[in-house]
Amino acid sequence: MASYVKDLVEGIKTGKISEEEAELLIRKAPFVDIGFAKVDMHRAVRQGAPEVIYGAGKTPKQIRAIVDTMMERGQEHILVTRIDEERAAALEDLVEFKYYPEGKIGVVGDMPEPDGLGTVLVVTAGTSDIPVAEEAAVTAEALGNHVERAYDCGVAGLHRTLSHMDQIMKASVIIAIAGMEGALASVIGGLADCPVIAVPTSVGYGASFEGLTALLAMMNSCASGVTVVNIDNGFGAGYSASMINHMAPKEDKE
Amino acid sequence: MASYVKDLVEGIKTGKISEEEAELLIRKAPFVDIGFAKVDMHRAVRQGAPEVIYGAGKTPKQIRAIVDTMMERGQEHILVTRIDEERAAALEDLVEFKYYPEGKIGVVGDMPEPDGLGTVLVVTAGTSDIPVAEEAAVTAEALGNHVERAYDCGVAGLHRTLSHMDQIMKASVIIAIAGMEGALASVIGGLADCPVIAVPTSVGYGASFEGLTALLAMMNSCASGVTVVNIDNGFGAGYSASMINHMAPKEDKE
Amino acid sequence: MASYVKDLVEGIKTGKISEEEAELLIRKAPFVDIGFAKVDMHRAVRQGAPEVIYGAGKTPKQIRAIVDTMMERGQEHILVTRIDEERAAALEDLVEFKYYPEGKIGVVGDMPEPDGLGTVLVVTAGTSDIPVAEEAAVTAEALGNHVERAYDCGVAGLHRTLSHMDQIMKASVIIAIAGMEGALASVIGGLADCPVIAVPTSVGYGASFEGLTALLAMMNSCASGVTVVNIDNGFGAGYSASMINHMAPKEDKE
Amino acid sequence: MASYVKDLVEGIKTGKISEEEAELLIRKAPFVDIGFAKVDMHRAVRQGAPEVIYGAGKTPKQIRAIVDTMMERGQEHILVTRIDEERAAALEDLVEFKYYPEGKIGVVGDMPEPDGLGTVLVVTAGTSDIPVAEEAAVTAEALGNHVERAYDCGVAGLHRTLSHMDQIMKASVIIAIAGMEGALASVIGGLADCPVIAVPTSVGYGASFEGLTALLAMMNSCASGVTVVNIDNGFGAGYSASMINHMAPKEDKE
Amino acid sequence: MASYVKDLVEGIKTGKISEEEAELLIRKAPFVDIGFAKVDMHRAVRQGAPEVIYGAGKTPKQIRAIVDTMMERGQEHILVTRIDEERAAALEDLVEFKYYPEGKIGVVGDMPEPDGLGTVLVVTAGTSDIPVAEEAAVTAEALGNHVERAYDCGVAGLHRTLSHMDQIMKASVIIAIAGMEGALASVIGGLADCPVIAVPTSVGYGASFEGLTALLAMMNSCASGVTVVNIDNGFGAGYSASMINHMAPKEDKE
Amino acid sequence: MASYVKDLVEGIKTGKISEEEAELLIRKAPFVDIGFAKVDMHRAVRQGAPEVIYGAGKTPKQIRAIVDTMMERGQEHILVTRIDEERAAALEDLVEFKYYPEGKIGVVGDMPEPDGLGTVLVVTAGTSDIPVAEEAAVTAEALGNHVERAYDCGVAGLHRTLSHMDQIMKASVIIAIAGMEGALASVIGGLADCPVIAVPTSVGYGASFEGLTALLAMMNSCASGVTVVNIDNGFGAGYSASMINHMAPKEDKE
Amino acid sequence: MASYVKDLVEGIKTGKISEEEAELLIRKAPFVDIGFAKVDMHRAVRQGAPEVIYGAGKTPKQIRAIVDTMMERGQEHILVTRIDEERAAALEDLVEFKYYPEGKIGVVGDMPEPDGLGTVLVVTAGTSDIPVAEEAAVTAEALGNHVERAYDCGVAGLHRTLSHMDQIMKASVIIAIAGMEGALASVIGGLADCPVIAVPTSVGYGASFEGLTALLAMMNSCASGVTVVNIDNGFGAGYSASMINHMAPKEDKE
Amino acid sequence: MASYVKDLVEGIKTGKISEEEAELLIRKAPFVDIGFAKVDMHRAVRQGAPEVIYGAGKTPKQIRAIVDTMMERGQEHILVTRIDEERAAALEDLVEFKYYPEGKIGVVGDMPEPDGLGTVLVVTAGTSDIPVAEEAAVTAEALGNHVERAYDCGVAGLHRTLSHMDQIMKASVIIAIAGMEGALASVIGGLADCPVIAVPTSVGYGASFEGLTALLAMMNSCASGVTVVNIDNGFGAGYSASMINHMAPKEDKE
Repeated sequence: MASYVKDLVEGIKTGKISEEEAELLIRKAPFVDIGFAKVDMHRAVRQGAPEVIYGAGKTPKQIRAIVDTMMERGQEHILVTRIDEERAAALEDLVEFKYYPEGKIGVVGDMPEPDGLGTVLVVTAGTSDIPVAEEAAVTAEALGNHVERAYDCGVAGLHRTLSHMDQIMKASVIIAIAGMEGALASVIGGLADCPVIAVPTSVGYGASFEGLTALLAMMNSCASGVTVVNIDNGFGAGYSASMINHMAPKEDKE
Repeated sequence: MASYVKDLVEGIKTGKISEEEAELLIRKAPFVDIGFAKVDMHRAVRQGAPEVIYGAGKTPKQIRAIVDTMMERGQEHILVTRIDEERAAALEDLVEFKYYPEGKIGVVGDMPEPDGLGTVLVVTAGTSDIPVAEEAAVTAEALGNHVERAYDCGVAGLHRTLSHMDQIMKASVIIAIAGMEGALASVIGGLADCPVIAVPTSVGYGASFEGLTALLAMMNSCASGVTVVNIDNGFGAGYSASMINHMAPKEDKE
Repeated sequence: MASYVKDLVEGIKTGKISEEEAELLIRKAPFVDIGFAKVDMHRAVRQGAPEVIYGAGKTPKQIRAIVDTMMERGQEHILVTRIDEERAAALEDLVEFKYYPEGKIGVVGDMPEPDGLGTVLVVTAGTSDIPVAEEAAVTAEALGNHVERAYDCGVAGLHRTLSHMDQIMKASVIIAIAGMEGALASVIGGLADCPVIAVPTSVGYGASFEGLTALLAMMNSCASGVTVVNIDNGFGAGYSASMINHMAPKEDKE
Repeated sequence: MASYVKDLVEGIKTGKISEEEAELLIRKAPFVDIGFAKVDMHRAVRQGAPEVIYGAGKTPKQIRAIVDTMMERGQEHILVTRIDEERAAALEDLVEFKYYPEGKIGVVGDMPEPDGLGTVLVVTAGTSDIPVAEEAAVTAEALGNHVERAYDCGVAGLHRTLSHMDQIMKASVIIAIAGMEGALASVIGGLADCPVIAVPTSVGYGASFEGLTALLAMMNSCASGVTVVNIDNGFGAGYSASMINHMAPKEDKE
Repeated sequence: MASYVKDLVEGIKTGKISEEEAELLIRKAPFVDIGFAKVDMHRAVRQGAPEVIYGAGKTPKQIRAIVDTMMERGQEHILVTRIDEERAAALEDLVEFKYYPEGKIGVVGDMPEPDGLGTVLVVTAGTSDIPVAEEAAVTAEALGNHVERAYDCGVAGLHRTLSHMDQIMKASVIIAIAGMEGALASVIGGLADCPVIAVPTSVGYGASFEGLTALLAMMNSCASGVTVVNIDNGFGAGYSASMINHMAPKEDKE
Repeated sequence: MASYVKDLVEGIKTGKISEEEAELLIRKAPFVDIGFAKVDMHRAVRQGAPEVIYGAGKTPKQIRAIVDTMMERGQEHILVTRIDEERAAALEDLVEFKYYPEGKIGVVGDMPEPDGLGTVLVVTAGTSDIPVAEEAAVTAEALGNHVERAYDCGVAGLHRTLSHMDQIMKASVIIAIAGMEGALASVIGGLADCPVIAVPTSVGYGASFEGLTALLAMMNSCASGVTVVNIDNGFGAGYSASMINHMAPKEDKE
Repeated sequence: MASYVKDLVEGIKTGKISEEEAELLIRKAPFVDIGFAKVDMHRAVRQGAPEVIYGAGKTPKQIRAIVDTMMERGQEHILVTRIDEERAAALEDLVEFKYYPEGKIGVVGDMPEPDGLGTVLVVTAGTSDIPVAEEAAVTAEALGNHVERAYDCGVAGLHRTLSHMDQIMKASVIIAIAGMEGALASVIGGLADCPVIAVPTSVGYGASFEGLTALLAMMNSCASGVTVVNIDNGFGAGYSASMINHMAPKEDKE
Repeated sequence: MASYVKDLVEGIKTGKISEEEAELLIRKAPFVDIGFAKVDMHRAVRQGAPEVIYGAGKTPKQIRAIVDTMMERGQEHILVTRIDEERAAALEDLVEFKYYPEGKIGVVGDMPEPDGLGTVLVVTAGTSDIPVAEEAAVTAEALGNHVERAYDCGVAGLHRTLSHMDQIMKASVIIAIAGMEGALASVIGGLADCPVIAVPTSVGYGASFEGLTALLAMMNSCASGVTVVNIDNGFGAGYSASMINHMAPKEDKE
């Protein structure tokens, strides 16, 4: 915003901007500021961060149009989530588009080099949780994180969980993904000494109530350091994990 | 019932019972039969099984009256559940009454010698689950089981759970008691090779919804061999555990 | 695990395994141990226990691949649950594969001889509950139990329930399956003197809420000895019933 | 209303009522009519029907004031529901007031002679359901019904239910009252050949959710002829039962 | 049952039935009795009552088979509910089969002459509730009731409700059917002086939660004389209404 | 009603109406009055108000028939809601029919000139909320309001919300439409100084529970001046907004 | 804000405000603006509008302190909601404080002269809803509205509702308050031709679920023109009603 | 664990440990390892981290006993949560105990010097949320974080939120605390470029359902970077925030 406000102040002083215009611009400026401040600052920290398109409910045409507009504006990295194969086909001719069908997610542009503090570990309880896990993993990769995957580690077969003990201890952030009773979050949360983001999934039947049981169980985890995102929200978990994995000392900005 | 029906048949044949009476008795007999059959059979298997009084909502006077009536009828072992200290006082003068305040449960008569197949292990996630656990444990003991207790073994501190590995492996039946997210049931269920009865408790706050979250989580346990009883139902778990721990070959009874 | 740990101890003693290797192996071993321990121990009790494949959400190809792998490893008995006819077709050429379409369940290998303590009785309230019942019944049979079926015994036609009185009295374990109001569990639980595993089903409409009403009702059963599994979880009920029906005295293993 | 409308018609015809007055009266009359019509008609069928005061949330003074007003207006039978002992004391000096503490219900005036088609049978699953049952029973008695009580007939002890078989078969209307899993309604509904009004109660704990489970179970009863009223609504059940027990041929009234 | 028990007593006396057989028969007899008692008694009251087949979840073939069996046994009136046009086609060649597509209900045999106390009035709030209403109406007609229909009488257009005032006042039983907020039951319940059976329907969207809102609202109706059945349960309402409309003085049967 | 009651009074006076008929007519009169009162008055206030047809669940034929009947009766403005393109086709040949596919809503007749107090502003949180918004906007337009649209203003990008600050401050009524967490209503409610009608939408996934979360959140808005309608109820919001935007001084009508 | 921004622009031009200060002020200004804009504008429309203090959870001391501060700042009208008698006592010595115990609400300063478009009618279903009604009524009065009250008009006694027909037809805004099944909102909504604000109350028992049933029912009202506020939120309803009752033509403000 | 395993290997090699003992020890070893690994590591990273005692449900005596034991073991920093004033009194004589009554939390030992990456900002929507906020803030302080507080910033008064814009932009982690509709999380989440931990509170009434509405709303936040903890779980939020604020590059530990 710096230059925008500077120009505004300059314009008022020199008279290029009339008093009426000045009033209007002052009223509007900070809102613009708020909007762009976040993006700018974000950019300041890590160049090349992608824009994100939430694909659910958008037609292939609409997605293509948004991507085209973004690319015309110079955006080279675009993350498209909740996009099935049919709609992904609308972007196929983009040489730089890579589609990951398991996570129903795609990326325009090269994957960035990982520049985080450490590893983001994505753990799932079962194999049916993998689509959510892949959404999380590809999101984190697209945001510049080294990602490791440990799938099918449900606590009902505790040796499966514990066989990933080394990865759990070495991770900087862990995304714990489980449906049904969601117990994975508590066990991982107790083992790890890093932030754990729990993702309930809609995997299960009967009294799993499409993920509600896992969500409630994860909210009640008695392990410290566990926070929770929405059911099946792999993207949100990947995004938060990336934020945490890119933490850095923060100076006052005034 | 055997002798009752035999007498009836005999009475019809000899004419001691009129046809009208016969019709009536035949219509009523099996209902009586059903009622006593269960108790009898039960008795046949293990002598000395106690009667059970559910104390909740009963006045001290009422409880005393029921106990007195039972004792007059010759019942020497009586289990009284959900009885607080104040109401327990009404039974204090019975020399053979022993009250266990933690589980709000008391027993008239000596505890029987354990005669089950093995050990009933009562495990809790936290210390706040102990009242439910004691209701379960004393119930099982009063029904003739050797009981071991392993409290405060919540999976968020997995080493606490695993430090009881030996007991878990050696138990014949395990009662897994937990509030909050109820993950204990899944972990125990995965480790043990015996039936696990899960008891959700109303321990927790916020989204634990007085035990509903634990109940739903336990219903969704992906570990095989886990079944669930009502929230805080320590008695039910102890009773079922005892039944399982007293399993024996069963012949046809015809 | 026995031989694995023995070899490890032997290797350390003889020096075949270096100290560094030893440390690593010891850290990892028990996890393996836990996993296999359960299976082994289980095996020790009853030879020929099948592996189980949960078919829901798996492609015909995936199921076939898992079965093939298991068979190559020498597994002769495999239970495949939640597998519809289309996916079952992928296993058709296996001479030893038998598919039970009502329960959407199939078995690789011969059914074992029943070796349990007694009979597992599978009771349903209505005819619509039969698919869940067949999943439970075939599971129990595949795990070595003599199974009897008593279908359409809903308590609203009490004579239908009571006409199976003999079977109820003679059973070692009963699986009570009902949708709608789930009252069957309470009535059976009151009549029987053996453990009763209640299975709520999603049968019903309106305020049955896909089985939630039956689940809640069964949790509240005032009959002692009743425990509950997830909605439509026939497999879980069959598995637990088999565990209970194979109870045996248990020595300390130290 | 008959006379009111007759007077009105008469007044118009004779000119005693002006056209303006007539218009106004006609617009207002039927509202009065509706209100009294119902009572009148009801009265036509059975003389001596009481007014009803719902005591919950009313002060002793308010209840007394309403009773006094009613009595001044000549009402000789008044039913006061949801009135605890303390508030009942405010009516003690009325010689004709009889208080039934178990049902927290009281009646001003003599109980009417039963004039219904048959017996209203009030059945409960447990002893804790008795307060609701007494509210229902006294309501029905105060409305002119012969009432029989059969308490503590829960289906988990089926012989207790069936020992009342004769009463069940002979009743004209049955009120089935149960908390917890509410199975009583289904069993009674299946046995009886008369209308059954099911009353869920808030008796229970844990997953009984203050009567919600019983309510949902009763709504799902697979027995035909069962309808349901609100949790703990003994009065409503008694009122409906009385209506049904006083059914009579109905002529067109035109 | 009379003759069955008589034969039994006779057989015992004459020795035609051995003691062993006698014991078995006595144990079983009353259950048979219970079952048939209800039907018999029912029959005693009104000849020609139809059997009912609940068509949901049954194949065309199964329905046909059941109908054929019933007809072979001499049953001339059969009510088939929840049967869509496709499955109804399986019964088309039966000359006496009449299908009512709106209520997805059909009847084998002639509709009986109405023999009830008065009229069953079926009222709906909207036109979308008509399928449930028709299920109720045809059921009541098939059970021997004179039925009137008053559709689209929702209270948000109170004049539409009130325009049926005459029918409401003259009815013997009213079935009030509504989705959304279910307010119809309260208004009708307040206007009528006869029993009202409320049927919530799954009509609505958003916060109607498939009928749950209407169900809860109807349970809370402050109008006396209203009882409720399950969501969309037109059959149940019609059945109960018929029972009430056929009330008659009841003698002791001993 | 005036003439109806006058005729009635006249008829009674002259004897043209018998006393019996008079009684019946007097009972019915006021209800007749009520019904037409509202419609008449409504018309009296603003000529040209359209009739509304709720299209959901109606066949193309039924909709066409209703429209034809209305047009024959002289109705020139008809609003048809919840009508998809297929059913809209049934009205295509009407020259004056205009279909708005985004809102699944159509209008017969010209849009009226706006005659409200000011502007109705329709704001949405996201683009997926637009269908509901268009239903609201077209409804308001068809009822004679100047409507402005501000879409995709979700508070998670607060600058997007605030960039419409001018419109928010100038609006007479605001319709705030949001799914997921529904926070838009609170922010708009806090910024605006006019009535805000909040519409929760079923947009979202997981714990949005088809709009329930947005509904509950909006009910709890701590901003004064916010009221709420049903999930996805764009029509209701548009209708209420129009009512408010047409507020005028109201004289007593007596 | 006008003068604030003018001063700012002036200051920048004249150099009284440095560029750095200017930047900061511009970033902050509009937020301040937004805050005060609303209040100012509000004030511009109607002088004397009171500040509101939500008393729930505040100590008598805290309430007194806030009132004192406001009065020192010159605020002469203050509305204090959710304040019980004990806490009201803390304000007793203020000569201009008037407390309304039924609505647990009090007002500092004189009630303003009504200056709205017409009458705000507050209707309740029962007498238990009066506290909520009084909160709504006093709020509306304190905000400058003529208020009429019509209590105990529940639709189960429809004549009670309809006896207020005149008031309903003449009102400018109606607040419809009901617990239990909340049907009042639909009936009033259908009768009135003005905006109706529905307030569910926590009055009821059993399946009223502390107002949830009434809330859901009101959301589903099929009457157009009905919007809903939170359970027991009399203040919110009164505030919205006042806003609507003070609607006026709105010019662009630029 | 290093030395434990080394000793074990050594013992096996030297024969000091028998083969039987070796087997048992190898099975147990890794679990022992797991338990201590976390605590050790934690300590390794930041010296002086406090032990935490969850005070809820513990007697003053129990809390004192635990504190005494910990202090004897040399623990100098102890955080005691959910401890009311009465129970805090039991620790009063400890010179180093400081109690924070607003957050019902106390600390034994000096507060550590902040050593995090930046500031933890604790924001609340209202003043009633402050107890939860103080639990979070004191927790974070006790774990070595610089904490700033911004209370009463609810989005319904957006200027209040935005007046803290600078703090929001400069924070390293934000804890957003709100009851009722929980919209604060979405707005803060959209403004901030750092991780936001949302804490729903049980503040509210009616449809806030003790925090469930806020919880669901926060789960659905459309702002990226927001994760959620349990209702009223200030401690959990403070703990997670501290973890994130102490993120550091992580090397492989092998």
